[in-house]
Amino acid sequence: MRNIKLTIEYDGKNYAGWQCQKSRIKTLQQTIEKAIQRILRHKIKIIASGRTDAGVHAQAQVVNFKIDSSIPLEKLQKGLNAVLPDDIAVTKVEEAGLDFHSRFSAKSKAYRYTILNRACRPALLRDRVYFLPYPLNLRLMQKEARVLLGRHNFQSFQAQAKKEIDSTRTIKKLRVIRKGDFIYIDIEADGFLYNMARNIIGTLIEVGRGRFPEGRLRKILESRNRKLAGPTVPARGLSLIKVNY
Amino acid sequence: MRNIKLTIEYDGKNYAGWQCQKSRIKTLQQTIEKAIQRILRHKIKIIASGRTDAGVHAQAQVVNFKIDSSIPLEKLQKGLNAVLPDDIAVTKVEEAGLDFHSRFSAKSKAYRYTILNRACRPALLRDRVYFLPYPLNLRLMQKEARVLLGRHNFQSFQAQAKKEIDSTRTIKKLRVIRKGDFIYIDIEADGFLYNMARNIIGTLIEVGRGRFPEGRLRKILESRNRKLAGPTVPARGLSLIKVNY
Repeated sequence: MRNIKLTIEYDGKNYAGWQCQKSRIKTLQQTIEKAIQRILRHKIKIIASGRTDAGVHAQAQVVNFKIDSSIPLEKLQKGLNAVLPDDIAVTKVEEAGLDFHSRFSAKSKAYRYTILNRACRPALLRDRVYFLPYPLNLRLMQKEARVLLGRHNFQSFQAQAKKEIDSTRTIKKLRVIRKGDFIYIDIEADGFLYNMARNIIGTLIEVGRGRFPEGRLRKILESRNRKLAGPTVPARGLSLIKVNY
Repeated sequence: MRNIKLTIEYDGKNYAGWQCQKSRIKTLQQTIEKAIQRILRHKIKIIASGRTDAGVHAQAQVVNFKIDSSIPLEKLQKGLNAVLPDDIAVTKVEEAGLDFHSRFSAKSKAYRYTILNRACRPALLRDRVYFLPYPLNLRLMQKEARVLLGRHNFQSFQAQAKKEIDSTRTIKKLRVIRKGDFIYIDIEADGFLYNMARNIIGTLIEVGRGRFPEGRLRKILESRNRKLAGPTVPARGLSLIKVNY
């Protein structure tokens, strides 16, 4: 028995997310499983580090699956990249220990959200950024972001429809950086509740726009009330950058 | 009479270039002219700094056209960005002097070519980069590139089908830079012969791969023979970055 670990880059634009209840809709999991099955010629079930929403991208999603085939890693990678559609690429194939589990072994996941902050809408990066034409107070966003660092109950930032029993997570990094017309929000946590990254970013943007004054973020966090936080930002600006094991 | 100068960003993927003989094929010029006509409600002819080939992108193409409408610049820009397809955006609208001509007034144009130099094909940037999995000798590329700097007859790098009477141009800048998995080739010249940028880049890549030894570039330049130079690289890696006036 072998445990194969894949690192996968994908453009989420044309997928209904990682997984989906409706079987007729194209998902990333299904597309990748089909490709593996074409190479190995038998059914396979893959495990991902987590499910990305419809439209979310990945520079380095991690999945694993067990096989008893003796196929060489390089041959597996070449085969996969030959049969996968051009918006999915397997950037790395490794042999993992038998106890490695893409999701449960993950220590943290890092996402980057990209905002295009200029007067004019984007043409070149239209599917990769969230376009915001108004000025944002980065200093205040950076200051308020610090409130969320560490271990907290993030119920205020959890999609109301899909509540987990335990909403406690640890945010290890939350940074707001400007580079030219781009603003990057980098967030790393030991785990994310459903829509947590996009709700935190939506809330930070409200701070930057001056709609949430200094101190509001702490109140939102402590309220455990989703209604007090900002809106969920669009998926297209979000990318899974790295899974740390 | 007013002379309007537009700066335009576009994703060239879905266009048969700036202009095309066949009237049934979608071009950038035609699409932009149609948008302006929808706003101004009369026929208009625009002049671009130059024609980009099918699949070539632009961060800042410049066009101009003369009107006698008194439409405010801001209204024109908003109108255009509302009616243009989402892969074209007008990033700037300015009032130019009546003698300004996008093409003839241009002092130089700067292009950037992007190579993804890693083992695995790209998923996220598949329409913006040229994927090269083998190692490139950047030092030799940089050294040989210097041969092309300055005023020369670039007939060796001109598409054989479309010859200009005078093939003399001045290359003001030609740089090869690596950033992570990306290699950027930046080229600025007072003008470009048909396919000149893509042929020079294709030749530099042959140098980097070790197919053209040191000193070969000078021989190619002096030969004025297109057959001795390298292949034309794919359009998708090329982007018009800036037109200098």
